[in-house]
Amino acid sequence: MSTNPAGTGLQLRSLVKKTGELELSLASVPIPEPGPDEVLVRIEASPLNPSDLALLFGGADMNTAKASGTTARPVITATIPERAMTALAGRVDEPMPVGNEGAGVIVKAGSSEVAQALLGKTVAVFGGAMYAQYRAVKAQQCLVLPPGTAPAEGASCFVNPLTSLSMVEVMRREGHKALVHTAAASNLGQMLNKICIQDGVPLVNIVRSQAQENILRAIGAKYICNSSSPSFMQDLTQALAETGATLAFDAIGGGTLAGQILTCMEAAANLTAKEYSRYGSSVHKQVYIYGGLDRRPTELNRSFGLAWGVGGWLLTPFLQKIGFAEAQKLRERVASQLKTTFASHYTKEVSLAEALTLDAIGVYGKQATGEKYLINPNKGL
Amino acid sequence: MSTNPAGTGLQLRSLVKKTGELELSLASVPIPEPGPDEVLVRIEASPLNPSDLALLFGGADMNTAKASGTTARPVITATIPERAMTALAGRVDEPMPVGNEGAGVIVKAGSSEVAQALLGKTVAVFGGAMYAQYRAVKAQQCLVLPPGTAPAEGASCFVNPLTSLSMVEVMRREGHKALVHTAAASNLGQMLNKICIQDGVPLVNIVRSQAQENILRAIGAKYICNSSSPSFMQDLTQALAETGATLAFDAIGGGTLAGQILTCMEAAANLTAKEYSRYGSSVHKQVYIYGGLDRRPTELNRSFGLAWGVGGWLLTPFLQKIGFAEAQKLRERVASQLKTTFASHYTKEVSLAEALTLDAIGVYGKQATGEKYLINPNKGL
Repeated sequence: MSTNPAGTGLQLRSLVKKTGELELSLASVPIPEPGPDEVLVRIEASPLNPSDLALLFGGADMNTAKASGTTARPVITATIPERAMTALAGRVDEPMPVGNEGAGVIVKAGSSEVAQALLGKTVAVFGGAMYAQYRAVKAQQCLVLPPGTAPAEGASCFVNPLTSLSMVEVMRREGHKALVHTAAASNLGQMLNKICIQDGVPLVNIVRSQAQENILRAIGAKYICNSSSPSFMQDLTQALAETGATLAFDAIGGGTLAGQILTCMEAAANLTAKEYSRYGSSVHKQVYIYGGLDRRPTELNRSFGLAWGVGGWLLTPFLQKIGFAEAQKLRERVASQLKTTFASHYTKEVSLAEALTLDAIGVYGKQATGEKYLINPNKGL
Repeated sequence: MSTNPAGTGLQLRSLVKKTGELELSLASVPIPEPGPDEVLVRIEASPLNPSDLALLFGGADMNTAKASGTTARPVITATIPERAMTALAGRVDEPMPVGNEGAGVIVKAGSSEVAQALLGKTVAVFGGAMYAQYRAVKAQQCLVLPPGTAPAEGASCFVNPLTSLSMVEVMRREGHKALVHTAAASNLGQMLNKICIQDGVPLVNIVRSQAQENILRAIGAKYICNSSSPSFMQDLTQALAETGATLAFDAIGGGTLAGQILTCMEAAANLTAKEYSRYGSSVHKQVYIYGGLDRRPTELNRSFGLAWGVGGWLLTPFLQKIGFAEAQKLRERVASQLKTTFASHYTKEVSLAEALTLDAIGVYGKQATGEKYLINPNKGL
């Protein structure tokens, strides 16, 4: 392991070709020289989040994936369905670096005082292009991890922790009093349960298996509805009536689930309605889709009156909207509970080259609960 | 024609039976005695708006409609699909009067000064239960029509005029600069064109036939996209790029149209984007569904980034939200342009009994552009 890097480092790249082919490969790129206000981070841990996979796979059908290249420099190719190409027009024939967030050690610093002060520190960074051995970033972008924190423990400081905290913030700001969350046994879902328990916010968890129910029961979740159960709609309506939840965050996106949630919210509202309204209840019911685990179209049967909304939701614009000071409060809460509330769990740590194997993609590409991978770009080096 | 009514009058009623049967009939009800602040309106004109049809037909499949009863007292029955019954639970076995708005002559007034002042006046009322020969309402609910205005000319003073004016209001309040409207050759759509031309608001009209295009061209519409054209998506993207419209009001609801509008808005936004964003453009794109001409589920393929929203929209809560003073400005604009901007057109005037024939239902029940009926509950009397 060199603490005085020179020469080149590996960077994972995702290329969408005009021909409709996706190509994933490792490029050898010059190690960047940090500017006065910058530091050079040797990245040792970066998670494969669903939001990373969207950029990584570029809409390709990964069932068509083929491996070539060498063990040290693997190449993965796959076919992108024609209908997906329109949305990708802006990135065609331009190799994209990947990896929203990560953690590592600062091995070189620019001349400024603030940069020099970070030398040798273990930091977390939310900056993109983190699937690389080295990354130069502004010193002020770095979150210094508490002493004794390994990069793997700080790899997921931003996306999941800030997203789950923001869900509770949105709930408060938009005047709701309880939450619904789908794919609720995920890393993010577990964090959200811990936050809601701490904050006394009722949370209705939607999962699709008994195993996922068990995960959530074990961490103290109260309301869990299994969408594979024949009584799902009744169970969900009951939980919504008890909690008064009229806001849901949905990671699934496709299929009928978002609409089913609205239908049950409406049924719960009508349980207490005094008279028939042809337009449905006047209670506003909202689902924010923040992921796309199911890529099929969202299907809404509109059996829930006219006081409803479905929309996309994304972390960064929300943080911009609430402003630096409010966002900073959320970041500080994350830093203070990194090994408890905001701890992430990974199935396996892989190198950049190991991440580009069909076996690995076959696991982390499924985005299944409890099968999350962590990339260590400097593994074994 | 009696100006001193006594005894009973006819009222149209819609009944959803627990057995899943819809029954439409005319009931003979006592003519109400106006209270001190009330007036009695002899209703002479009330439109069959889509929002009325929803309550009237109660989700029944009108292809199954059967006629019975007599010519003077017809009865229509039809089957309600089982899946529709859940949403109707609140009105089962309770006969509902129908008719949101209408106009007529005040034939009796309560003792108060404000009520007495209205005696003999022709007024418009937005109050429900207007498919009836007589209706008692609060004096202050009445909009006195200008001298020389027939009830038929004032029958549609509220729903379509205030809805179309509110669309422009929503656009301004939510920071958009142009509008999209579907089913755009409807009475409401024509009003919206006139308003937008007056106010200098760019409006993209979506229609589905050449005949509808012609209607809109004739009243000066500039942007018209025909959804039955093979170049619809390109045409719409072009119109959206030219106008910058990021807000649509959709009367169709079902199928893929709402999603297609969002897809084209995103494509229009990306025409000017400087770099690729995996999350799509940062421009917020909104579709409000305010009708359900297509009862199928709304299908969103989510090929439009994450800055989007789809939601239900309803006039009354919007007017409540903006408050009485702002709503009153809209009402005054309607009253001042009743025979021009806000004029409605009807195919046929029918009596209450004539409205309950299979022939009539076969026409107005289609909700086709240019086939709108007007009920005159006192026709021929």
